[in-house]
Amino acid sequence: MLIGKQSWAFPNKPVIAATGVSGGPFEANGNLAEDFDILHDDLWMGEESYEKAHRVLMEEAAQTALEKGNIQKEDVQFFIAGDLINQITPTSLAARTIQLPYFGIFGACSTSMEGLALASFIINYQGAKYILTGASSHNAAAEKQFRYPTEYGGQKPPTAQWTVTGGGAALLRANENEKGVIVTTSATIGKVIDMGLTDPFNMGGAMAPAAVDTIMAHFKDTNRDPSYYDLIVTGDLARIGRETTLELLQKNGLNIERDKFQDCGLMIYKEDQPVQAGASGAGCSAAVLYGHLLNQMKQGVYKKILVVATGALLSPLTFQQGESIPCIAHAVSIEMDE
Amino acid sequence: MLIGKQSWAFPNKPVIAATGVSGGPFEANGNLAEDFDILHDDLWMGEESYEKAHRVLMEEAAQTALEKGNIQKEDVQFFIAGDLINQITPTSLAARTIQLPYFGIFGACSTSMEGLALASFIINYQGAKYILTGASSHNAAAEKQFRYPTEYGGQKPPTAQWTVTGGGAALLRANENEKGVIVTTSATIGKVIDMGLTDPFNMGGAMAPAAVDTIMAHFKDTNRDPSYYDLIVTGDLARIGRETTLELLQKNGLNIERDKFQDCGLMIYKEDQPVQAGASGAGCSAAVLYGHLLNQMKQGVYKKILVVATGALLSPLTFQQGESIPCIAHAVSIEMDE
Repeated sequence: MLIGKQSWAFPNKPVIAATGVSGGPFEANGNLAEDFDILHDDLWMGEESYEKAHRVLMEEAAQTALEKGNIQKEDVQFFIAGDLINQITPTSLAARTIQLPYFGIFGACSTSMEGLALASFIINYQGAKYILTGASSHNAAAEKQFRYPTEYGGQKPPTAQWTVTGGGAALLRANENEKGVIVTTSATIGKVIDMGLTDPFNMGGAMAPAAVDTIMAHFKDTNRDPSYYDLIVTGDLARIGRETTLELLQKNGLNIERDKFQDCGLMIYKEDQPVQAGASGAGCSAAVLYGHLLNQMKQGVYKKILVVATGALLSPLTFQQGESIPCIAHAVSIEMDE
Repeated sequence: MLIGKQSWAFPNKPVIAATGVSGGPFEANGNLAEDFDILHDDLWMGEESYEKAHRVLMEEAAQTALEKGNIQKEDVQFFIAGDLINQITPTSLAARTIQLPYFGIFGACSTSMEGLALASFIINYQGAKYILTGASSHNAAAEKQFRYPTEYGGQKPPTAQWTVTGGGAALLRANENEKGVIVTTSATIGKVIDMGLTDPFNMGGAMAPAAVDTIMAHFKDTNRDPSYYDLIVTGDLARIGRETTLELLQKNGLNIERDKFQDCGLMIYKEDQPVQAGASGAGCSAAVLYGHLLNQMKQGVYKKILVVATGALLSPLTFQQGESIPCIAHAVSIEMDE
């Protein structure tokens, strides 16, 4: 149901029945290692290329969600997913393995919430009994494509972010008037916001205005204010983007307590891991939400959260052709239905 | 509403209120020039790169659909679109211009029907009042990325296809119990089908099994048979893919009269244009459907058509890494509601 200008309400409260999260060696040494279902010792994961390893992350996350949900693949109607690699190749190859009717999506690091919003809408209106949705990224595959081959050992400025090697998937299903389940209640779809920033080593700063635009729209469309949520968590703004966002929100008259406003890109790694400003990648918000944050919700730490996945829709081509970075953010509210 | 395993029915019959189609010089010399709203004299379209010209095609198609629908942009909720270029850059840049909440999608040349299926579902359930959806491709931008720079003048085998320079957009809205409007009535979402073909110069052949899988699923899920439609039209199978598909359908026990089974990739150009097996590209089915085919429907030539957009989800990377070509097809049925 459309509410306001760019948001949906999900009155039937689609249930996040199960999730799966897979990660790499850097994530295994991180803050949230215990929240991963599968962790790999190396970036190759037994494959012959980083992109094929990337595919494995998505396959494992999806497979784990099915297993934990105790659902046969045959009962699932659709797979809605994407990633950062050209032609979302790893996701399409995972879709070939998974063999479910497939919607490929691209929203860079906002992909996780683009997928969850669509899946929630479809489930809410009986367009499927079960939907798998997710996103993934692979550090070495992303570096190779967007920056330099890692073997080159290029130095990075402190504003740079570290692409997460991880995949996260959620299995959604219809709500049968249950209690004690985690549900989605609304979503806000973002516009492309581009403030003219051009530095691919400062994505957080570029994405901040998009996060602000979507957060402002969410509260306007839903007639809620920040007090509705126990946590508002962005995808991968990291240190600089988070500060900029808090500042811009305040300028727009929206004050959110610092503690209540967190970022997946600042949660996943330890302080002493050399990730500069924090984490990023399509797998960042997917892995942190579908692992850590939902675990926290099950433990009663949070009852209502708003997840705002931010995406920088740049490509090597936009950079080469002197374009600034178009950014976007999509938000989904997730609640423990009691 | 889910019907069967992988299809939706749209009982509220979303209306295709208006469309816009833009094309390049090769299309201006083609069979369907009169069905284009805008045709460009050269591939640059006043821009400094082919990718920026590609963006222009999508912007023009979207803008034309709004104008012909006599709808202000402010009344439209969402833009659902994609293309073939890395990170769907031209579409995201068009989304920046259009400034509507944006779902980026990637289905290669199946993008047009992926978007129309999603838009129809959302409109059917009041998730929006108006949605713009579309797809585009640019010959020189696609050649540069997937094959060789055109300046190289590489020869192509007769199985190769010619990427359409074109964009097509449709404006969807809710049906207010009207008659004499063009509506969508169902959609079938395809799985990734990969029969192990590896030749990027024979996409039609690679995509044929995906088209067959989706067509078979469509008739099974909807309990219809080919006699329900006046025309079944694939996206860009071209000469070889069309023959293979007809043959495979027959083997599966589905006989479709040759005349009733057409392909957008064989309609858009003249016999004497040097396009080898036919046309392809994300803009092929979008431009042919939203231009020519809907015009034919308005003229009463067809009342019910099934559009099966086929996509080869390959990338330069899959080719380099020795992967075969994963393919997909999505189908939408479009009817004159009398």
